Amino acid sequence: MQLQIALDRLALDDAIQLARSIQYYADWIEVGTSLIKEFGMESVRRMRQALPTARILADVKTNDNARYEFELCYTAGADAATVMGTAPGATIETCVAVARERGKEVMIDLLATSSERQRELLKYREAIFGVHVSKDVQEAGGKGTASMVSRLPDWAAERSVAIAGGISLDDIPALGARLPNLTVIVGTAITGASDPIASAHKFALALEPYRQLKGR
Amino acid sequence: MQLQIALDRLALDDAIQLARSIQYYADWIEVGTSLIKEFGMESVRRMRQALPTARILADVKTNDNARYEFELCYTAGADAATVMGTAPGATIETCVAVARERGKEVMIDLLATSSERQRELLKYREAIFGVHVSKDVQEAGGKGTASMVSRLPDWAAERSVAIAGGISLDDIPALGARLPNLTVIVGTAITGASDPIASAHKFALALEPYRQLKGR
Repeated sequence: MQLQIALDRLALDDAIQLARSIQYYADWIEVGTSLIKEFGMESVRRMRQALPTARILADVKTNDNARYEFELCYTAGADAATVMGTAPGATIETCVAVARERGKEVMIDLLATSSERQRELLKYREAIFGVHVSKDVQEAGGKGTASMVSRLPDWAAERSVAIAGGISLDDIPALGARLPNLTVIVGTAITGASDPIASAHKFALALEPYRQLKGR
Repeated sequence: MQLQIALDRLALDDAIQLARSIQYYADWIEVGTSLIKEFGMESVRRMRQALPTARILADVKTNDNARYEFELCYTAGADAATVMGTAPGATIETCVAVARERGKEVMIDLLATSSERQRELLKYREAIFGVHVSKDVQEAGGKGTASMVSRLPDWAAERSVAIAGGISLDDIPALGARLPNLTVIVGTAITGASDPIASAHKFALALEPYRQLKGR
């Protein structure tokens, strides 16, 4: 099990300061979509400068213009970037190809994809698949209706999977028991905590029993 | 018929300089997704400062976190912002609501949406619907297979529609004859021309016979 800490809806200086203080609890630091859209690639570049050894994912959520956007992210210092599973096939194909050329990683965000679409996308065996309850669906009250573990697709053990969307400490044991190789993406439960460092520490401890030698 | 000129894959200073020189041919200046992801909201803010009277669309392509992203765009000076038609319903609903609250416009980008999905989205009567052949599909050779006019959905006359994706001067007469109220989104054919100002002028002239008193 791995921990990805997502930084969103923060001033850039605050996001970087926070990332510096929690980086050793995180396997991945995510530069969230809101940081990219507000501050551009400067957000990724400054995160890379501040955290030279961290694994950084740029949540760029590409829908089109795949090569251009992915090269921006990798050149700015990201180790991984995200493409929407709802994007045209040619876009996803290009993102996977650019990642391969660069020796970097690609996450396919499954937000709002059908199970048929998900099955089609499984052909990208080297991708990380992001299972994602959207912020807007959470805010509309959609999170409480099902447990996090029930959101894992039936093919989850066959691929590298990350899960995001309002995950709390209480969700960890069931997720870890079901899928020890899962990456858990945590945002507000850490960044919005009164003590984010203490919260990141708690998540890292909660994941520990389910860690494997080999992550995603 | 209206002309929206899309600025993409340019250095920010160049995009702004170009926009200043062609703004009087354009009904809308689009700050393209690539500018937003590379330079953040600074791209929208600087465009607004440089072009105080232009109508500016921020092609932010929201997939989630709707209120935050749309408020960023409108606060930075955009008159319109885009949401993906493939986004969760709660996201599109929020974008439409924020646009209404702010007295601004919303474009729903129909990239990779099914015709069933498009029909569902027509309930947002005040939205602009963006019919969109993606850059990546164009580059994969997907543009030549059908005429631009054949890409207009059968409900196009019932809503405000904009069309994008490799549009050239030759496409204008058929599009204008079919749908005089259409907004044509032109990118590379102007920004990549050896003389972008002359090209913008030609597009403006080509649209002239199909202009109506009331645009979108």
